[in-house]
Amino acid sequence: MHLRPEMLGGVLLLLLLLSGGAAAEENCSYQDVLDHLNLTQRSKLFYMNRPVQNYKTPTEVHLDLLLYAILEVKEKDQKFVPYVWTTMWWQNDFVSWDPDEFCGISYLSIPNELMWKPDITIVEMTERDNAPPSPYITLTSQGNVEIVNDQVLTSTCRMQIYKFPFDTQSCNLTFKSFIHSDEEIKLVHHLSSAEITEESRDVMRIQSEWLFINITVSSITNKIFLHSQTSVIYTVNMKRRSALYIVNFILPILFLLCLDLSSFMISDSGGEKLGFKITVLLAITVMQLILNEILPSSSNSIPLIAVYCIGVFSLMMLSLLETVLVMYLIEKDSAPRDDETEEEGKQ
Amino acid sequence: MHLRPEMLGGVLLLLLLLSGGAAAEENCSYQDVLDHLNLTQRSKLFYMNRPVQNYKTPTEVHLDLLLYAILEVKEKDQKFVPYVWTTMWWQNDFVSWDPDEFCGISYLSIPNELMWKPDITIVEMTERDNAPPSPYITLTSQGNVEIVNDQVLTSTCRMQIYKFPFDTQSCNLTFKSFIHSDEEIKLVHHLSSAEITEESRDVMRIQSEWLFINITVSSITNKIFLHSQTSVIYTVNMKRRSALYIVNFILPILFLLCLDLSSFMISDSGGEKLGFKITVLLAITVMQLILNEILPSSSNSIPLIAVYCIGVFSLMMLSLLETVLVMYLIEKDSAPRDDETEEEGKQ
Amino acid sequence: MHLRPEMLGGVLLLLLLLSGGAAAEENCSYQDVLDHLNLTQRSKLFYMNRPVQNYKTPTEVHLDLLLYAILEVKEKDQKFVPYVWTTMWWQNDFVSWDPDEFCGISYLSIPNELMWKPDITIVEMTERDNAPPSPYITLTSQGNVEIVNDQVLTSTCRMQIYKFPFDTQSCNLTFKSFIHSDEEIKLVHHLSSAEITEESRDVMRIQSEWLFINITVSSITNKIFLHSQTSVIYTVNMKRRSALYIVNFILPILFLLCLDLSSFMISDSGGEKLGFKITVLLAITVMQLILNEILPSSSNSIPLIAVYCIGVFSLMMLSLLETVLVMYLIEKDSAPRDDETEEEGKQ
Amino acid sequence: MHLRPEMLGGVLLLLLLLSGGAAAEENCSYQDVLDHLNLTQRSKLFYMNRPVQNYKTPTEVHLDLLLYAILEVKEKDQKFVPYVWTTMWWQNDFVSWDPDEFCGISYLSIPNELMWKPDITIVEMTERDNAPPSPYITLTSQGNVEIVNDQVLTSTCRMQIYKFPFDTQSCNLTFKSFIHSDEEIKLVHHLSSAEITEESRDVMRIQSEWLFINITVSSITNKIFLHSQTSVIYTVNMKRRSALYIVNFILPILFLLCLDLSSFMISDSGGEKLGFKITVLLAITVMQLILNEILPSSSNSIPLIAVYCIGVFSLMMLSLLETVLVMYLIEKDSAPRDDETEEEGKQ
Amino acid sequence: MHLRPEMLGGVLLLLLLLSGGAAAEENCSYQDVLDHLNLTQRSKLFYMNRPVQNYKTPTEVHLDLLLYAILEVKEKDQKFVPYVWTTMWWQNDFVSWDPDEFCGISYLSIPNELMWKPDITIVEMTERDNAPPSPYITLTSQGNVEIVNDQVLTSTCRMQIYKFPFDTQSCNLTFKSFIHSDEEIKLVHHLSSAEITEESRDVMRIQSEWLFINITVSSITNKIFLHSQTSVIYTVNMKRRSALYIVNFILPILFLLCLDLSSFMISDSGGEKLGFKITVLLAITVMQLILNEILPSSSNSIPLIAVYCIGVFSLMMLSLLETVLVMYLIEKDSAPRDDETEEEGKQ
Repeated sequence: MHLRPEMLGGVLLLLLLLSGGAAAEENCSYQDVLDHLNLTQRSKLFYMNRPVQNYKTPTEVHLDLLLYAILEVKEKDQKFVPYVWTTMWWQNDFVSWDPDEFCGISYLSIPNELMWKPDITIVEMTERDNAPPSPYITLTSQGNVEIVNDQVLTSTCRMQIYKFPFDTQSCNLTFKSFIHSDEEIKLVHHLSSAEITEESRDVMRIQSEWLFINITVSSITNKIFLHSQTSVIYTVNMKRRSALYIVNFILPILFLLCLDLSSFMISDSGGEKLGFKITVLLAITVMQLILNEILPSSSNSIPLIAVYCIGVFSLMMLSLLETVLVMYLIEKDSAPRDDETEEEGKQ
Repeated sequence: MHLRPEMLGGVLLLLLLLSGGAAAEENCSYQDVLDHLNLTQRSKLFYMNRPVQNYKTPTEVHLDLLLYAILEVKEKDQKFVPYVWTTMWWQNDFVSWDPDEFCGISYLSIPNELMWKPDITIVEMTERDNAPPSPYITLTSQGNVEIVNDQVLTSTCRMQIYKFPFDTQSCNLTFKSFIHSDEEIKLVHHLSSAEITEESRDVMRIQSEWLFINITVSSITNKIFLHSQTSVIYTVNMKRRSALYIVNFILPILFLLCLDLSSFMISDSGGEKLGFKITVLLAITVMQLILNEILPSSSNSIPLIAVYCIGVFSLMMLSLLETVLVMYLIEKDSAPRDDETEEEGKQ
Repeated sequence: MHLRPEMLGGVLLLLLLLSGGAAAEENCSYQDVLDHLNLTQRSKLFYMNRPVQNYKTPTEVHLDLLLYAILEVKEKDQKFVPYVWTTMWWQNDFVSWDPDEFCGISYLSIPNELMWKPDITIVEMTERDNAPPSPYITLTSQGNVEIVNDQVLTSTCRMQIYKFPFDTQSCNLTFKSFIHSDEEIKLVHHLSSAEITEESRDVMRIQSEWLFINITVSSITNKIFLHSQTSVIYTVNMKRRSALYIVNFILPILFLLCLDLSSFMISDSGGEKLGFKITVLLAITVMQLILNEILPSSSNSIPLIAVYCIGVFSLMMLSLLETVLVMYLIEKDSAPRDDETEEEGKQ
Repeated sequence: MHLRPEMLGGVLLLLLLLSGGAAAEENCSYQDVLDHLNLTQRSKLFYMNRPVQNYKTPTEVHLDLLLYAILEVKEKDQKFVPYVWTTMWWQNDFVSWDPDEFCGISYLSIPNELMWKPDITIVEMTERDNAPPSPYITLTSQGNVEIVNDQVLTSTCRMQIYKFPFDTQSCNLTFKSFIHSDEEIKLVHHLSSAEITEESRDVMRIQSEWLFINITVSSITNKIFLHSQTSVIYTVNMKRRSALYIVNFILPILFLLCLDLSSFMISDSGGEKLGFKITVLLAITVMQLILNEILPSSSNSIPLIAVYCIGVFSLMMLSLLETVLVMYLIEKDSAPRDDETEEEGKQ
Repeated sequence: MHLRPEMLGGVLLLLLLLSGGAAAEENCSYQDVLDHLNLTQRSKLFYMNRPVQNYKTPTEVHLDLLLYAILEVKEKDQKFVPYVWTTMWWQNDFVSWDPDEFCGISYLSIPNELMWKPDITIVEMTERDNAPPSPYITLTSQGNVEIVNDQVLTSTCRMQIYKFPFDTQSCNLTFKSFIHSDEEIKLVHHLSSAEITEESRDVMRIQSEWLFINITVSSITNKIFLHSQTSVIYTVNMKRRSALYIVNFILPILFLLCLDLSSFMISDSGGEKLGFKITVLLAITVMQLILNEILPSSSNSIPLIAVYCIGVFSLMMLSLLETVLVMYLIEKDSAPRDDETEEEGKQ
């Protein structure tokens, strides 16, 4: 700010400057904007109601989601825990100032709890993050209000375990207002599916067991009596990394099956064949302990891996029974011969 | 809004519009209704007491419940964790306005903590959801107040494990007021059993291990000294999906039993029979590790599956003892013959 | 309300009714009682101090406890988690009104946080229930204040595991004031042991592993310097249901012991006896895995079940060693004979 | 308080008594002391700053600790969870009254949040108890402020597992101020090591796996730049009860080793020796599952028990290899003889 | 304080002292500074906005981190839980006083919630510490504000498990502002990598499974549209202590492999070789149970240890198959000879 000599009140102003601090520059402080908005006095206006001049104007809430990490996917509990950053912004009719009047301040941030916020909830979420969102909220001179939030969403997800461990899962995150209809709050998603997928891929930090495929976003409008309510649904698609399940579970069982099959080469007469086969069966029983830990019991149809496991078990059992039967027949067959021999001996 | 030239006060109105903002339409703002209700000044009136003009009028609290998911059913801890949405509404005698005076505003939403809420608790709930309910509460012009809540109810449930894993469980959710009798708060359920069941079936997201059958609702009135208190009981009926327990536990044990029985075909004289049978018994012991993990010890009567398991175990043991005995007798029988042979040899 | 024609001021009253709402019945509103008590203005009086006129008067706090469920008893962590409902009431000298002046209102309920509450704590409790108590507190016209609370008490309990799983445990819940002596707060229990036991038995919902026997209540007064402090101790007695432990652990081990003993009938000369016995020992080792999971290591004396388990193990080992020794002696005995035979052959 | 006839203003006082309630005894109410202290008005004085007249006066904070229980000691996570009661008291220069003026009231208790409290933290604590401390704080007429707290301290502790399960652990609880130096807050411990040990021994409720030995207390002063800060360190010494580890783990492995050694008596020629030894090795492998659960991997040196376990394993493996070698040599030795025999036969 | 007779105003001062307390020394109380700052009245100024005179001045936030402990590193969940102490300080333009005017008070501490604090977040953190930071904040006379915090950071970390258990992990802690750009908040780290490493090494309390190597610190500036945002990244490098994994898992498997290889010395003809080899395979299967517990399935490439385990398994299986084949061939080879013998016998 230049103090020009033409200014009449210059001296007075200078005095003010010297006495009261940065008086001339005072309009450059955030405080002036707050004073202009009359924020504390009219606080009722700012947090009690949806901030519109006319109640018939719906508040358009823009939503943006970024997937930072897939923290946990538990089939047993049908639980999906992503770590997301959400951004929401909307128009507040009661907030507006002319940046030119305030040294060009075009936006500022104030504590979170002072402003009305839309009651957007995620339908699938079963445990709310007890961490607070960003402590500050951003206001622009045009009345836009923006809130940023990072959340660990403990949500439910209907998982298909039929093809486990070669499965691909799709989990929904449905954002909607708790109690407001579309006439009051209109939920709009900002980025397209492709953009969210790309950006999430950039920031994605960890990918434990699951390989992130993409995110798709869509809007669905439900009619409830006379009102309609729009939900924004983000669908996270991901693929399980099955390498370790193959190495730790499927291969060993396959190996044991091979062993069992190879036992056909062992002579039926000796006792070692039986001991061999039953020990292989015991090893399969031990592997069953692992299966019991990793598989949920949720699907109507039995998952393929359980069929595989019980199939191998049955096969082994049948071959064992066959062995026992053959041994029995051989023995029975040889017994008369012994008798014969005996008889022959007697003769 | 159309400003017609026939309007006399048009110019004046226009001036007002230009100077003071939407002055003519100002009654269309929610703020006016709040000012009419005098909400902050008389706040004592709104949250301190049951909102009735005459204390003899009971407050009728209407209740609605929707089951979204059965998250967890743990027999070991007798724990039942459903995820429900509850809606409650009641009459507030101090809230009322004429919608015509306020551009037709017939309802509005205000922050949750400003109003009195009934102290409805769920008797079985042992861990309260630390998530807040909907941050806003809806008021209508006739004085109706509505609150919506989504809750993860960690509740206790007396479970019958006798028929495990073919069991059907019924878990209660008993809603009642903490301290108010029927003279003060009358709890009423709104939807019928059939309606709740149908609606819950529509929204049900996941059905992990349990198959949802239906919900029934009933009211029970208890007399406590002179007062009576009505509870609304929702009973969730569900059936366990036993497929995986059959595949993982019951079938393997049955298979092992078959194997053991098949050993009767093996010659008693050889040592392999004994080795075979004892290894099968060892496999049963390993399966016992799984049983120990899934079964609680709560019922008076021993569950069928434990009887099945110990039964198979006993059968095998008896057959083993019999084998040992037979072997002993055969040996004893043959020993004298050996002696005889020896004696014969000596002769 | 009947307006009789004899009434002189009827018209006036009618006017009042029409203008100011329910003016004639206004004293029937709870608000009037609050205004009489001057609750918000003199709030300092209501929550800052013990509500007595003279500081020498002790506040008698009456206590009532009802056991709803035994949620968890973990010997490993010496943890006892009951679910109880507690009721406390005491005299507030600053609360009193004449019910006749207020249409007969003899009690009302106000938000919890407005009143002083005694600082009663449970000494054994290690994790406080994060759920709030009843949101409302009841005041009577005589100045009685009552608070109801349902709590999940995660408490410690010194358990005796010597007789496990045939043990009976007694867990204490000691209620006492944090900082007040008997001169300030006198803790009194209301119901007798028999009454609490009976009522608890009525409401008890679940009895997972433990069978509730009874509750006893007693008072103990400790001298601390010049002051004395009274504690109210509720002792919950309960008995473990051991059926499943017998079926899953004790019986199988007993069976295995029988098998081992039966092996004495097997001929010492054959290799099968050794194989048989060592496999039974292996099965015992697998059972040890279960024992390791269920037993804590807290007691000075080793629990009977561990003695039983290690006893069976030792017995089996000794009999195995004996078998090995006998086999060795037989072989040694037969070896010279072989030599002799050889020698004989040589001769 | 005695009203003597000599008193002139007696009549006036009597009038006051009749009109204003218990006016004569009014000074016996706690409220009067609070009014004297002007607690709400000058509240800024009470909770904003360290309560000293002159900022150069350090506030001496007296500390007392009582160990109620050792709840958990986890070597795997290096976690130590004691349950302690702490008492702290200090001088508040702004609180003082003459007990004689107030009927002899020498102390009172007020809600916790109204007063300044020192920011004492425990350095090792990693999870703060979410339970509130005593809701009330005690003030004496001399200006002493006392606060009582019961805490479950989830703290870290560097444990030595070398001698497991015969180890003795020492865990520190270091109390110090967050940001204040000794010039501001002087931390002083009140009881001596012997007294704390004795009192803790009296109140100690449970002693799960660990036997409490004693507590020692010491003060350490650290120089940070120009300031010095004193910490009070309580060291809890305790000894593990190893009985169950001996019975469940060490003895069975020792038994198995004996068995293996006894196998030297079995004839090398027969196949049973090999089967015997390999089954004993399998049993050791199962025991390894238990070791894997109880042992952490934190120490630089391998704990003795792991050395013991791997030692037994190696011994058995070597003896097995020796057996295999001997068998091989015997066979090789006998093979030529067979050839010889054959040759002899041919001859 | 010495009152010397030479002092003129002594009497007056004495009077003041007697009447108003420590009036002469009153400027030595913290309260005077607070009054000078007008803290409660102008509180809006202190916590609502970034405390700068001119909004164009960025607030430089200095950051310091000290690693106290590595509490948990879970590969399965890609979770890293360090325990850190952070210190932050920045300039507040509205706080300043002349220490000389206030007896030399150069700093004071006030409750935390009264001042604006930067919204610094840690990007990787998924669970916020529910413990409050230091309850007090320090202000200096030059306007510096300092806050100290001890946090248990539950954060995600992309871990490389390829070389498990001989791996070295690097986990990032990225500090950045939630919503502020560099024009508003400039994040600066204070200590160098070497200094942090050294200081952390001094205070490090426990080092469970992980050996702390060092911490490196760096700054990264991201461009987002027109704004740029600086993040400070602390990277914790640490090395796993693999001793116990070697002793408990790798050595036993290696031993079992040796045993299996040694079996080549056993005669192919006897049944004992087969029994020996299959039991060794069973032992490997039991070891697989341990592997399943400790290994995550996150990496694209299969970790070396799984390759090692499955490799040993395959080797054993192949040698077993070879044994079976050889036995089959020997038998087939000897069978014709039997026939021959028989034929010879017949001849």
